[in-house]
Amino acid sequence: MMEQYTSKREYLQALENLSHLPEGFFCSTTSLTFFSKEMSVKKPYNMNLALLALIQDTESFAAVFTRNCFPGAPILINKERLSQNSLRGVLINNKVANVSTTDGKKDAEQLLEILAQEMGTSASQFFCASTGVIGWKLPVDEMGNKISQLVSYLKNDSILPVAEAIMTTDAYPKVREQRVGLGKILGIAKGAGMIEPNMATMLVFILTDIHVQKQVLQESINWAAVNSFNRISIDGDQSTSDMALLFSSNKIPLTNIDDFNQALLYVCQQLAEDIVRNGEGVKHVIKVQVVNAPSLELALGTGKAIINSPLVKTAIFGNDPNVGRIVSALGDFLGNTNTVVNTAAISISLGGINIFSNNSFYLDMHKERKLSNYLKDCSFSIEKGYPPHDKNVEITVNMAQGREKVEVIGTDLSYDYIKENAEYRS
Amino acid sequence: MMEQYTSKREYLQALENLSHLPEGFFCSTTSLTFFSKEMSVKKPYNMNLALLALIQDTESFAAVFTRNCFPGAPILINKERLSQNSLRGVLINNKVANVSTTDGKKDAEQLLEILAQEMGTSASQFFCASTGVIGWKLPVDEMGNKISQLVSYLKNDSILPVAEAIMTTDAYPKVREQRVGLGKILGIAKGAGMIEPNMATMLVFILTDIHVQKQVLQESINWAAVNSFNRISIDGDQSTSDMALLFSSNKIPLTNIDDFNQALLYVCQQLAEDIVRNGEGVKHVIKVQVVNAPSLELALGTGKAIINSPLVKTAIFGNDPNVGRIVSALGDFLGNTNTVVNTAAISISLGGINIFSNNSFYLDMHKERKLSNYLKDCSFSIEKGYPPHDKNVEITVNMAQGREKVEVIGTDLSYDYIKENAEYRS
Repeated sequence: MMEQYTSKREYLQALENLSHLPEGFFCSTTSLTFFSKEMSVKKPYNMNLALLALIQDTESFAAVFTRNCFPGAPILINKERLSQNSLRGVLINNKVANVSTTDGKKDAEQLLEILAQEMGTSASQFFCASTGVIGWKLPVDEMGNKISQLVSYLKNDSILPVAEAIMTTDAYPKVREQRVGLGKILGIAKGAGMIEPNMATMLVFILTDIHVQKQVLQESINWAAVNSFNRISIDGDQSTSDMALLFSSNKIPLTNIDDFNQALLYVCQQLAEDIVRNGEGVKHVIKVQVVNAPSLELALGTGKAIINSPLVKTAIFGNDPNVGRIVSALGDFLGNTNTVVNTAAISISLGGINIFSNNSFYLDMHKERKLSNYLKDCSFSIEKGYPPHDKNVEITVNMAQGREKVEVIGTDLSYDYIKENAEYRS
Repeated sequence: MMEQYTSKREYLQALENLSHLPEGFFCSTTSLTFFSKEMSVKKPYNMNLALLALIQDTESFAAVFTRNCFPGAPILINKERLSQNSLRGVLINNKVANVSTTDGKKDAEQLLEILAQEMGTSASQFFCASTGVIGWKLPVDEMGNKISQLVSYLKNDSILPVAEAIMTTDAYPKVREQRVGLGKILGIAKGAGMIEPNMATMLVFILTDIHVQKQVLQESINWAAVNSFNRISIDGDQSTSDMALLFSSNKIPLTNIDDFNQALLYVCQQLAEDIVRNGEGVKHVIKVQVVNAPSLELALGTGKAIINSPLVKTAIFGNDPNVGRIVSALGDFLGNTNTVVNTAAISISLGGINIFSNNSFYLDMHKERKLSNYLKDCSFSIEKGYPPHDKNVEITVNMAQGREKVEVIGTDLSYDYIKENAEYRS
């Protein structure tokens, strides 16, 4: 849980305190201006470049990627990099996602080549990551010209400028840390729109100085991602560029792998929540708990059906406890699975108040008023403090016919979401 | 294709011309005021009651229903009615959906009992249909008091008042007819929000005077529904109350069942398009054609993934040809199926312009401008004529790895959609 502050400035100062890089890392950022070859209107766009690097190569790194069938060039390149014996860091840009252009892979490799020359190593030692508009080409010349500067800026200091540089429509930077023994795990994320389970549309970079072998590290990030990033959804879209990268500098001995995993999970869950809370135009964060389900698959499907229903999302945005829509979304999902479900056993609560069981609603004026006030209380705005409070609209579906449970996190659907997405490239 | 008129009045006059009931039917409407027991604010709500009836019982009737797991009381009752030997008509109300209340079935049966007494028959001779807020109880007393009047108003005239009475957030009534030999098929629909394949959230009533046996009629409506109502989607929700009911008065001999089926399909497809075009806050209708797919399932999933993507929908609302989102939505879907798909074979066009093939975009300033103008041209508003024109944003996905094809119809996502759904009950 993060404290609230009265201004963005105070909040960023507080973030600064937990943003110091672990031992063995440095980072830097810079920016540039370019014209898009694909847009009919000739106007300049700004792009940020960022570099997260190890002071020495490491053999300990891991990654998880989107399952989207049209992966961006960075995903294709990074998947190849996983078989390298050692890596040195990652080059990141915002504004252009480098997805599905004719020479996307070549463009990115060319930039990594320039970076490698500056760093005195080979291009195969670097991951790359891009976020932004799909279908645009990277402005390779403009980016290439900035890389020498980017390398000269490297220092072992705060990761906060990188967390800010990778933002697109994010309202604030996302940094989370957790200490484990003498070491730490530090993570940053870029999220906002296009967020959905199975590697939400996002970039996540996690750095640690705790010594963990490559294979173990990969198992840890797989497990942590399934239980954090794959449980969130803003608009049901899994992007072409989602990834979470994890590096260790191996400077601090590992004492206990379970402690490490729990700390990693904590960082991932906190970043996942930050991404949702900071989603485009979000006014409510919605948490759906599905408990006592006959299978994990059914539990997840149930949670996602509710959290992705535009009718549920708009009602919550309007602070309207139109609970029929929750039941309708659930019934729609269950009616289209092949599983036989005993609907009479299912009960549903909103904000801890039972609203539905035995195939019937239990509603009255008194409850209606209570639920409406509950939704208002859960809505947030910058005026209420910075960052917004961490209250959630809590929906629980008790299926009472099994032992599986899952929690998914999503958002309401607001005018601002439409505004940001209708005008994203203008 | 429907003509455009300069005012709603002219349009309704034109609708009137095709709204005459087939032989053997009559209909009536009335309205009433009630207070909801479930709302915390004490204010009056208006409800319309409508009756579609046969002058004599018929043995020829058929129906298709939602697959939602929490069906409304009318769905439960109507499913029972299907095994009756003969039916007399259907009682319809808007404003309250009669879903998941403790006595929903009893309430509806009580009203049908009153209706049956007025009509000199039994309650089991009537279907019922309700649309509106889920979770509210029917105002049985207020409705019951109006039924005698409703019956006294019955006449063999225009179905247009019924098409108007069943509206909720619909912008205009929906009536379609098709002549077959000496008979006709006349259909009305209520749609707007909460529309999705597998019996979209809607009420559809189709009347014909052509003699078709019960079992054949059921096969005909099954086939027509799959190829019309189950191919549309406004917001991915399949409601608890969707149904299409079909009655024949058997007054005109059937000449050819194929002609009848084609006419029925035409009426259903036209009504389905009307429902989409009249969806809440819709500014663009989107048609996705998926061709040369390896399976019908994959074709349908592909179409639905694109048509239900909030990012695709908002970009089109903003007349922004952000075509990367189409590819991203497609890749998300394909990446999560277990089918192996050759992505390099897939090509995508927007408005007939090729935008993507061989895993790459083919975009330039010239195309961008053309696509942007195309989207603007496809947007509609009441100012451009009444009803809005019937242009569609046409997206074609050629999978080039099979022979299945499907067309799905959906809408953009606009501020007005949010407004209507955030404030639906206020």
